[in-house]
Amino acid sequence: MMIRKTGAVPTLRLVAAVLATIAVPMLAQAPAPPTRDALVNELVVANHILANEGVLDGYGHVSVRNPADPNRYFLARAGAPALVTAADITEYDLDSQPITNAATAGYQERFIHGQIYKARPDVMAVIHCHCSEVIPFGATTVPMQPMYHMGYFIAEGVPVWDIKKAGGTDMLVRTNELARSLAQALAGKSAVLMRGHGAAVAATSLHLVVGKTYYLNLNARLQLQAMQLGGGKVTYLDPAEAKNSTQDYERSWDFWKSRLPKP
Amino acid sequence: MMIRKTGAVPTLRLVAAVLATIAVPMLAQAPAPPTRDALVNELVVANHILANEGVLDGYGHVSVRNPADPNRYFLARAGAPALVTAADITEYDLDSQPITNAATAGYQERFIHGQIYKARPDVMAVIHCHCSEVIPFGATTVPMQPMYHMGYFIAEGVPVWDIKKAGGTDMLVRTNELARSLAQALAGKSAVLMRGHGAAVAATSLHLVVGKTYYLNLNARLQLQAMQLGGGKVTYLDPAEAKNSTQDYERSWDFWKSRLPKP
Amino acid sequence: MMIRKTGAVPTLRLVAAVLATIAVPMLAQAPAPPTRDALVNELVVANHILANEGVLDGYGHVSVRNPADPNRYFLARAGAPALVTAADITEYDLDSQPITNAATAGYQERFIHGQIYKARPDVMAVIHCHCSEVIPFGATTVPMQPMYHMGYFIAEGVPVWDIKKAGGTDMLVRTNELARSLAQALAGKSAVLMRGHGAAVAATSLHLVVGKTYYLNLNARLQLQAMQLGGGKVTYLDPAEAKNSTQDYERSWDFWKSRLPKP
Amino acid sequence: MMIRKTGAVPTLRLVAAVLATIAVPMLAQAPAPPTRDALVNELVVANHILANEGVLDGYGHVSVRNPADPNRYFLARAGAPALVTAADITEYDLDSQPITNAATAGYQERFIHGQIYKARPDVMAVIHCHCSEVIPFGATTVPMQPMYHMGYFIAEGVPVWDIKKAGGTDMLVRTNELARSLAQALAGKSAVLMRGHGAAVAATSLHLVVGKTYYLNLNARLQLQAMQLGGGKVTYLDPAEAKNSTQDYERSWDFWKSRLPKP
Repeated sequence: MMIRKTGAVPTLRLVAAVLATIAVPMLAQAPAPPTRDALVNELVVANHILANEGVLDGYGHVSVRNPADPNRYFLARAGAPALVTAADITEYDLDSQPITNAATAGYQERFIHGQIYKARPDVMAVIHCHCSEVIPFGATTVPMQPMYHMGYFIAEGVPVWDIKKAGGTDMLVRTNELARSLAQALAGKSAVLMRGHGAAVAATSLHLVVGKTYYLNLNARLQLQAMQLGGGKVTYLDPAEAKNSTQDYERSWDFWKSRLPKP
Repeated sequence: MMIRKTGAVPTLRLVAAVLATIAVPMLAQAPAPPTRDALVNELVVANHILANEGVLDGYGHVSVRNPADPNRYFLARAGAPALVTAADITEYDLDSQPITNAATAGYQERFIHGQIYKARPDVMAVIHCHCSEVIPFGATTVPMQPMYHMGYFIAEGVPVWDIKKAGGTDMLVRTNELARSLAQALAGKSAVLMRGHGAAVAATSLHLVVGKTYYLNLNARLQLQAMQLGGGKVTYLDPAEAKNSTQDYERSWDFWKSRLPKP
Repeated sequence: MMIRKTGAVPTLRLVAAVLATIAVPMLAQAPAPPTRDALVNELVVANHILANEGVLDGYGHVSVRNPADPNRYFLARAGAPALVTAADITEYDLDSQPITNAATAGYQERFIHGQIYKARPDVMAVIHCHCSEVIPFGATTVPMQPMYHMGYFIAEGVPVWDIKKAGGTDMLVRTNELARSLAQALAGKSAVLMRGHGAAVAATSLHLVVGKTYYLNLNARLQLQAMQLGGGKVTYLDPAEAKNSTQDYERSWDFWKSRLPKP
Repeated sequence: MMIRKTGAVPTLRLVAAVLATIAVPMLAQAPAPPTRDALVNELVVANHILANEGVLDGYGHVSVRNPADPNRYFLARAGAPALVTAADITEYDLDSQPITNAATAGYQERFIHGQIYKARPDVMAVIHCHCSEVIPFGATTVPMQPMYHMGYFIAEGVPVWDIKKAGGTDMLVRTNELARSLAQALAGKSAVLMRGHGAAVAATSLHLVVGKTYYLNLNARLQLQAMQLGGGKVTYLDPAEAKNSTQDYERSWDFWKSRLPKP
């Protein structure tokens, strides 16, 4: 496994991005970034929401960048998202080497997170999923299109990354090199499909990445239905409409959190 | 944002409409309109049902006209429908300016409700949803058709309103002007689809608007399936059948209410 | 509403049919028919199962013939199936006039049950449903076919009854005359689709009618999928296979009963 | 019913297979095979998971080979999988004659298990299911293909076995002879579809067979969707990718176990 050090990420963009991870009500009362504990707890909730809403099953993972140190990110150690606890959250550097919990096994594909954080200073949270509805789009040449405002970011384009062309011999992103290739395919967009595997989604906050992944998956189903209904003639959001239709998905987060099984 | 005062709504039609909001058993015992508290509580239940049955998710909203003052309506302040409590219910005038709870944020698209109440004295309850199954119909030129008696009102026609043609630059109905255009597209019908966004549904009672929205969504899925099955040859309800097939959905309401998670 | 008295149903066929309603373990220990209370309780469970498994929603109904008097059947008074209690169970004659609970409202379409019991001495239980997956088949000319052994009875043929041809002016079976026409369409089969409405299913026991309705609905979805997959070339059960593949669905009943919400 | 004794299964392959049934953490601490009680308890959990995740309904069954005696396997007596308890678990020989619980009824199709264990010394666990999404594939000539790494084993090929060609007169595998024919169709693969009936899945451990059956079913739905989306042009995992993409589904097991209803 090949590991390279990157230089410091541009400071100004980062400060903006870090601020964006803080929930609006907190901002109003307390402009300071969330404490480490608060962020870890939010990440645990994100894991549980993604499992409870069927976005992740036993596999897949979600991470958040450390707002206090942009060269670090938090990710659970290897395990089913529904079962993640605060004790499982590990801090990694951007080469995806563990800073904490070093003795326990990490996700084999954690490199996806590190390389996206390296390439995208604006990104504060990343999800890798096998969410079902996008799998057919990763296996065909039909591009994803934004069906409605909830999937507005799809208008940026959702590239399909093929691990075979990046030199992979199985489907898993087990190295920084493969992950770098994936991050390059993602470029400045919100989501990239992984052929025969799933997707990676990046956003400026934890709530946003959860919302984008949920609606990426739902939009895929609606697009297939619309194509079947319209015989190919479907009106998608146009670029200007999509650009003006940003969502923070804060109410989705509240809703999904309220639906978690009682502990 | 442009706001105009409308004149008083025709009195006789309104009295009939107000009476229609009162449940049948209550009518038998007590012909008086429901108290404000009772109506607010019913609206809270409607919010919870719509979320629990998957008609609304974190977004969308449901309102009811004040039977004691037809120039007022009740709608929750901005928040996820599943989490709405009686304290969140706000009274608005028909320009969608808050009469109560003025200090808290309202739904950005509350104008949909006010303008439909203005244009339609018979309407006592309104829902705006992003319900999934109708999205493909809003993106194609295939008209919705009534598959069965539960979707009888679809025979009135379900127009598709395009915000772009009304001068919108994003997908949201943020002004009275855009909402007035939507209400004009709805005209005297039960439902109007919003291209790239969702739907608005209007009815003479809260129970009815919940039932109509639920079955609008389900009927959409069944129509797509029937078109796939029949290769385009599908027999829908004819206009007379649909007209004779009115539903009050009272048993659906009882059923859905019984399925709400225990508090 | 027109009501006619029918003659006594043939005795021998009836005795066999009555015996068939008694569960196998009870037969071994106690050849006596179930008590009225036991039968009523089973009917309540059937109502709850059908709602909980999504076969019925707020509407539709299930009945069982009185094994002690073949000219009587039990059916809940009008109400959502999920909420039915033993007190709601009403005894009807085969003209669907109430013998008990006469003061309360009955289902408008209860005539379906009475007329099927009249026409079919072998039938001991009847369901009328709006189950979603069969609606597309009622709206097209594609005949239902048995996809697998769980839907074996579909090989008998599932006719589509059109209320318009029987003189109906809305979609509901509100008279004995319309119900008689429906029973004639059903003839000796297990199920008949009702165009633009739903289905009626008949069987020799309560457990059996619940199982047949559930798998009628599921089989409909699988057939649509198979037709889409195979481009029209689908291998269904052949008549001999279907005939040899009878199911009692007793384990389904146990499973579904175990899934009911705790009271 | 015809029963033949087979010779001892090859010892070395078996030892490896038996070891493979032991969970990895147990191996590290205790190389001894799981106790009989532990294995029975795991089998009960497998039954509950398969029912709770919709892979089995009231019918279908799961077995595990006795690691202490490769000529024996454990399977519940006849009953709904969701309701299986440790007391229901019966030990069978490879002719599917009960060694324990001999007085109670066994599954009519238990021969599927015995014959697969006989033919496949590497197999330690077997599932027979009617899982819905695979039914259309058993009724057409479209071969199943691996959509993504979670269904990697599908690349081995999923043959469709037709009971009619094996001399069956109904759809059930009620004899060792029919089961032997099914096992021959399975050959060295993970799964075989049964035309008009369901599937049989075999694996080297209980956790693996549960995971493979779950993803066989899900992959079927995704393949149908991809074929509809791509108009027949779909990129599946290639043989090398599939071979390198083995899964142990351990995290799926943990996830599914955590979702079981509280007793």
